[in-house]
Amino acid sequence: MKNIKLIIEYEGSNYSGWQRQDNVKTIQDEIEKAIEKTIKEKISLIGSGRTDKKVHALGQVANFKTKSKMPGIRYKHALKEYLPEDISIVDSKEVSLDFHSRFDARKKAYKYIIYNGKLPRALYRRFSAFCHYDLDIEAMKEASKYFIGSHDFGSFKSTKSIVHTNIRTVYNIEIEKTKDIIEIIIEGKSFLHNMVRIIVGTLLYVGRGKILKEEIPDIMAASNREKAGPTAPPQGLYLKEVFYIWNTSWHW
Amino acid sequence: MKNIKLIIEYEGSNYSGWQRQDNVKTIQDEIEKAIEKTIKEKISLIGSGRTDKKVHALGQVANFKTKSKMPGIRYKHALKEYLPEDISIVDSKEVSLDFHSRFDARKKAYKYIIYNGKLPRALYRRFSAFCHYDLDIEAMKEASKYFIGSHDFGSFKSTKSIVHTNIRTVYNIEIEKTKDIIEIIIEGKSFLHNMVRIIVGTLLYVGRGKILKEEIPDIMAASNREKAGPTAPPQGLYLKEVFYIWNTSWHW
Repeated sequence: MKNIKLIIEYEGSNYSGWQRQDNVKTIQDEIEKAIEKTIKEKISLIGSGRTDKKVHALGQVANFKTKSKMPGIRYKHALKEYLPEDISIVDSKEVSLDFHSRFDARKKAYKYIIYNGKLPRALYRRFSAFCHYDLDIEAMKEASKYFIGSHDFGSFKSTKSIVHTNIRTVYNIEIEKTKDIIEIIIEGKSFLHNMVRIIVGTLLYVGRGKILKEEIPDIMAASNREKAGPTAPPQGLYLKEVFYIWNTSWHW
Repeated sequence: MKNIKLIIEYEGSNYSGWQRQDNVKTIQDEIEKAIEKTIKEKISLIGSGRTDKKVHALGQVANFKTKSKMPGIRYKHALKEYLPEDISIVDSKEVSLDFHSRFDARKKAYKYIIYNGKLPRALYRRFSAFCHYDLDIEAMKEASKYFIGSHDFGSFKSTKSIVHTNIRTVYNIEIEKTKDIIEIIIEGKSFLHNMVRIIVGTLLYVGRGKILKEEIPDIMAASNREKAGPTAPPQGLYLKEVFYIWNTSWHW
């Protein structure tokens, strides 16, 4: 038995997200089908977590167990044959049998891209959110500091989400503006459903002056979705990287 | 009567090129339809030149004449309503009645993007050519110098193209590699059909060592399509900018 770890890039535009569901196209499903065609064996692919419809990934991680003797490093070449062009395997490797891409994830980094020009641009439409308002980037940077640390993020999760705790830990938020492009990097241990997009939507409201940065602690304390800003659209969001423990046989 | 100049960005992926044709979707056609819906008047849109199927534009230029009193600067906002998201009007302005976006063009700049990693990437597939070979960038830069100036580019045009002269003038070629991305900028007075893509395909053969840079003058002298390298794929090509004479009422 081998345990194979994949690092995956995808454009989410044409998919109903990562997770397999009936009657819709999902990324997990496409990759499972490609693996099964390659090794003629039924497998079960475990992702580090879900991504929503239209959300992209630069470094989603997944693993699966197989009886196939094919070397782990072959998969990144072999799967090309059966994968659609909007899903690509960046790297593949055999890892120890106890590696689990969801349970063992220690940190995730998301990137969010906003195109902040005056008019929407054809080449950016599927890869960024469009915001034509003047934004106070300094206020957004200051507001972002309130999110760092362990907090109740109940105001920053989808109302559909039911979990046993809303406590999550954000390690870092970086906001950079280069010409008309704003890039926001959010790193945390794990995230509630829509949490990154609601944080971004709230930061955009701060940038526009619709929420004051000093109001963030109260919004957080309320643990009420209605207090925070809107959910930023999915096409600006990228799962950038998933981090695992160093210095173990299954990490690379 | 007003003459309106548009600067247009588009993703060419889903179109059969710029030029109106029967039974297929073209960019010219989409923009004409959007204008006609906006001003309720039949117009004829003149582009600076054609772009092929899957080729993109950052700054295509087009103009049209209209009896509508709508100010030129309104079009960039108004056309959004009727344009698909993969075509956007970057700018619009009223220009003098004698401005003609094709006849008056003095210089065009094209950009060509090559992704030079080892494996294809989902997010780049529609926006770059993929080349996994090691490339000698210095040899490509040296080879590019042979194209500068006025030459017979008969070896560098589509065999379907019939024109009264193959003489064209290339002003400049810049080649830059940043990590795995190679960007080639080609500027010239005007270009033969597929000329930019065949120059790029030939430069890639030089980079791979399949053509020596010293062979370029002979390939050019042959004026025979079979002597040059392959035609690089359309999705890496962008019409970047069209230049017009300075210091006249219709330039901006």
